[in-house]
Amino acid sequence: MSCKTNEELTKLVEQARPFVKYGKVADYIPALKESNPDDLSVSICYLDGTRFFAGDYVKKFTLQSISKVIALAYVLIENGPNEVFSNVGMEPTGDPFNSIVKLETSNPSKPLNPMINAGALAVTNMFKGEDHYEKWEGFIQFVQSLLGIEEVSWNENVALSEFNTAFLNRSLGFFMKQYEIIHGDIEELLFLYTKQCAIEINCSQLATIGAVFANEGKDPVTQEVKVPSDVARICKTFMVTCGMYNASGEFATKVGIPAKSGVSGGIMGAVPHKCGIGVFGPALDEKGNSIAGLNLVQLMSDRYQWSIF
Amino acid sequence: MSCKTNEELTKLVEQARPFVKYGKVADYIPALKESNPDDLSVSICYLDGTRFFAGDYVKKFTLQSISKVIALAYVLIENGPNEVFSNVGMEPTGDPFNSIVKLETSNPSKPLNPMINAGALAVTNMFKGEDHYEKWEGFIQFVQSLLGIEEVSWNENVALSEFNTAFLNRSLGFFMKQYEIIHGDIEELLFLYTKQCAIEINCSQLATIGAVFANEGKDPVTQEVKVPSDVARICKTFMVTCGMYNASGEFATKVGIPAKSGVSGGIMGAVPHKCGIGVFGPALDEKGNSIAGLNLVQLMSDRYQWSIF
Amino acid sequence: MSCKTNEELTKLVEQARPFVKYGKVADYIPALKESNPDDLSVSICYLDGTRFFAGDYVKKFTLQSISKVIALAYVLIENGPNEVFSNVGMEPTGDPFNSIVKLETSNPSKPLNPMINAGALAVTNMFKGEDHYEKWEGFIQFVQSLLGIEEVSWNENVALSEFNTAFLNRSLGFFMKQYEIIHGDIEELLFLYTKQCAIEINCSQLATIGAVFANEGKDPVTQEVKVPSDVARICKTFMVTCGMYNASGEFATKVGIPAKSGVSGGIMGAVPHKCGIGVFGPALDEKGNSIAGLNLVQLMSDRYQWSIF
Amino acid sequence: MSCKTNEELTKLVEQARPFVKYGKVADYIPALKESNPDDLSVSICYLDGTRFFAGDYVKKFTLQSISKVIALAYVLIENGPNEVFSNVGMEPTGDPFNSIVKLETSNPSKPLNPMINAGALAVTNMFKGEDHYEKWEGFIQFVQSLLGIEEVSWNENVALSEFNTAFLNRSLGFFMKQYEIIHGDIEELLFLYTKQCAIEINCSQLATIGAVFANEGKDPVTQEVKVPSDVARICKTFMVTCGMYNASGEFATKVGIPAKSGVSGGIMGAVPHKCGIGVFGPALDEKGNSIAGLNLVQLMSDRYQWSIF
Repeated sequence: MSCKTNEELTKLVEQARPFVKYGKVADYIPALKESNPDDLSVSICYLDGTRFFAGDYVKKFTLQSISKVIALAYVLIENGPNEVFSNVGMEPTGDPFNSIVKLETSNPSKPLNPMINAGALAVTNMFKGEDHYEKWEGFIQFVQSLLGIEEVSWNENVALSEFNTAFLNRSLGFFMKQYEIIHGDIEELLFLYTKQCAIEINCSQLATIGAVFANEGKDPVTQEVKVPSDVARICKTFMVTCGMYNASGEFATKVGIPAKSGVSGGIMGAVPHKCGIGVFGPALDEKGNSIAGLNLVQLMSDRYQWSIF
Repeated sequence: MSCKTNEELTKLVEQARPFVKYGKVADYIPALKESNPDDLSVSICYLDGTRFFAGDYVKKFTLQSISKVIALAYVLIENGPNEVFSNVGMEPTGDPFNSIVKLETSNPSKPLNPMINAGALAVTNMFKGEDHYEKWEGFIQFVQSLLGIEEVSWNENVALSEFNTAFLNRSLGFFMKQYEIIHGDIEELLFLYTKQCAIEINCSQLATIGAVFANEGKDPVTQEVKVPSDVARICKTFMVTCGMYNASGEFATKVGIPAKSGVSGGIMGAVPHKCGIGVFGPALDEKGNSIAGLNLVQLMSDRYQWSIF
Repeated sequence: MSCKTNEELTKLVEQARPFVKYGKVADYIPALKESNPDDLSVSICYLDGTRFFAGDYVKKFTLQSISKVIALAYVLIENGPNEVFSNVGMEPTGDPFNSIVKLETSNPSKPLNPMINAGALAVTNMFKGEDHYEKWEGFIQFVQSLLGIEEVSWNENVALSEFNTAFLNRSLGFFMKQYEIIHGDIEELLFLYTKQCAIEINCSQLATIGAVFANEGKDPVTQEVKVPSDVARICKTFMVTCGMYNASGEFATKVGIPAKSGVSGGIMGAVPHKCGIGVFGPALDEKGNSIAGLNLVQLMSDRYQWSIF
Repeated sequence: MSCKTNEELTKLVEQARPFVKYGKVADYIPALKESNPDDLSVSICYLDGTRFFAGDYVKKFTLQSISKVIALAYVLIENGPNEVFSNVGMEPTGDPFNSIVKLETSNPSKPLNPMINAGALAVTNMFKGEDHYEKWEGFIQFVQSLLGIEEVSWNENVALSEFNTAFLNRSLGFFMKQYEIIHGDIEELLFLYTKQCAIEINCSQLATIGAVFANEGKDPVTQEVKVPSDVARICKTFMVTCGMYNASGEFATKVGIPAKSGVSGGIMGAVPHKCGIGVFGPALDEKGNSIAGLNLVQLMSDRYQWSIF
């Protein structure tokens, strides 16, 4: 069963929207505090290119942690799995996404997976390029190619706000530099990472990228290969085992689709062989996931029988 | 694409068998040391009841940690998800399967998931019954019903061997008793748990149970409901996120099917909507998974395109 | 400067007593809940046998953790430092006294010191004897010899209350049994340990034992050697570095004398070359130390210039 | 009993020197690798100003962690105990000196004591002054006043070598900045801290500073107050509970004097009411203490009965 009209999607959004009042917008990055907690929007992109929408689906928001999946895909393509997984592990963790403990207690010191902050920093540190400009260009062109557009913007205000307050990420960065997991200048890495997190996108575009992953790496409209199928598969795996912060296990049990959330309130879903989804709802639960967004994805998964399990 | 003959399965077994020499049989339970490290056998059970075999597929071995999934299904049916998940969490962990650290550092103290030892003890502690006999009867009848047979044996030698040396599980048990996660007598719990782990089965039977989970809880031959579909789905989810000890993430990435391993060398797989699989190969890798068994499952998954991602 | 009259001690007690209202009696062992939170008494025993008292100095209470020092002295004498320190470390810890984390994360697994519960269990496990009776007799005779009396009682009610609820100590015990730090039956060990903790004593007697340690192991009246001087010195060292639970460092800084507290509200002090002290005040602060007792010891240390630093 | 001649001290040095072959010089700071592992020298400064020497007692070395005690004394004087201990704790720890784990797992996040790196950084962060120059001047003048000389040098080569490789200290610094334990620019803090660690001194001078602490804060020759007596006492306390890295407990038991070591191979001792000592022996044991130096201090403590316990 699949979605047929924007109206049915709008009904689901209205069913999920009341949950916004139990959440609150992220405040650890000053610029994110300004989001409207009542927002909730969604887009589905089927693998034949059909699209459905509800809510303000062209409203821009920043990728934040959703960029971790895209950056992972990028380095898997550019650097290959061997290099990538020599610097970052493949295992889920019960620790918080910003935890440093396991870096000290594990031997060898290596971030457990690319979806926690330490692992994401190690991933971004593998971007190829002579300097910041080349590294950034390589990555942003990859994002543009996924979206099939020529220019993707990043929110300078959000990036700088995060850059100026990312002391914990600097702590993780220097710790890994000590153990030679990452190399080079930490400030430059942080700048690259905060820009990556500040890329602006809307629900519809998020659904497009989800659809690429769902479609074994091929564009849902043109069927052009944007990501090799094995890279797409690896990314979907991490989305299941550690895509939703410390609620990944519960989400897998209740919803059962590859998905990645960010503290801006976005959720990108990739339902294998079916569709991509983009959700935006900035009111977060205590684990950092969009509270109404989670509810909406569960309603859709139940209705359209998306669970891969 | 699906398996057509026992011969093609036998070829895959021969391709995987050389890996046995890089593994070794479990020695932490004295009775397991006597296994033959060269053994490797497999069975596939398709959802129309068709079966294929290779190796000594009727050789008995003990379930060990594979019993964790079956016990979870049992309490989910008998006690309901609300009670179950008030005592045990749903999140994967980066800690070893027998770790106690998170019980102390998490607040509230609660085992992270039902696939680690602490969580499995909490699950078995929920078995209903007035006494050991009733608790055991309830569970063993559930196992018998899954297999469609009237008697399932358990290996007393293995059970006692484990019971006599399970100091770490006692430590976990008493720790959780302190925090009122588990109740009652720890020795009785340990006896129940070690018997559960010592249930004897062969590859063919393991494939049957896997097929029940793969078939949304229905018997692959009679289509009779053995497990409610939502319970089957929850179990498959945990098999993906934490079924293969600390190699679960890597297994999900490389093989991509719900599976659970045990230190006896067994692996039970449940490929949704396709088939159940049973593998036995007692030579283990350092994480506690059958070393040749893992390789064999990966060969099958690649060939028959089983990955759910 | 030293104490000259009971009256001046009584004044100090009255100065410290108001603090009792900020503390509360231990409730983790049911039988301890019945203590009177307003109690506060003290005894000083100088090394020439002179004694001073204030408050109800003959009121009995149980040793609890104070017994850890006496048990340590006992095994150091009976088993020798080499055996003792092969089973238990010499380093302070920042973890709680009942923590299990370091047993798992340290390699080799070994309790950090004899003043935390894990270490104290390892110490009691070294008591020599064929059976419980012999082990207990050996230890209780040592306590009697320290006190110079022929019979020392233990509170059966407290011991059983603790024995029946000591799940965390059992957890520690089994964990160490797994790693072969301790041997034998855990229930028997727990029984021995809870009896040791339930030995009844009063302030005056506590001061006597403190005086033995302060006097390089010699009885303050007869000058008979009760404890070899090097054993007495080792014990005083542990009292400074880890005698006051997680407030040991602060106590060393503010008071500066070897001391050991227990959750019954007792504090035993040993001021080298000067005196022993016994304090009883069952209202505890959040770290488990007698709240008015701590204050009283600090008043005495300031007045009589006891700090060893 | 006290030392009477340089000859008897020379004999003790010769007795301890063979241990140098079981240690090795620090290599984590490149510039320290060039030390001569065979060096061993000592100086004792009695509280009447009498001095004894053995070995090359005028050879300069850098303070390294010994500076932690001096910096602590400085901020206790300048900022007062209340401010100091609101930013850094008083408790010993069983974790390594450079560990970050407790900063994450403790609530509130606060370094356990001023002798571990996290705590020492928090101490240096409290140096008063408008800019780096003023902060440094304030501290170096305090060191000069302790030594009674007008100029103290710092080894630029060692400081820069450490500054360029101190990634772990930066990690600790940013972590604490996140939790507002420290403020301001981390690079500036690191520069100040590495200069502090690179202050050059010799054995004789080290003994002088030790003697100030031993003498309740007064200069051993002039009896002028250099450090208030309560500050001197607090410092000696930390030297006992956490002055010798993860061997502090063992050192307290075997030697029993307030002492602080550094990875350059220095050990400063403060025997209350008796003497100060300075030792230099750059070959370290695995815990980071001078291996022959430790042995030498133990020989002296046994011979001259220095233990405070």
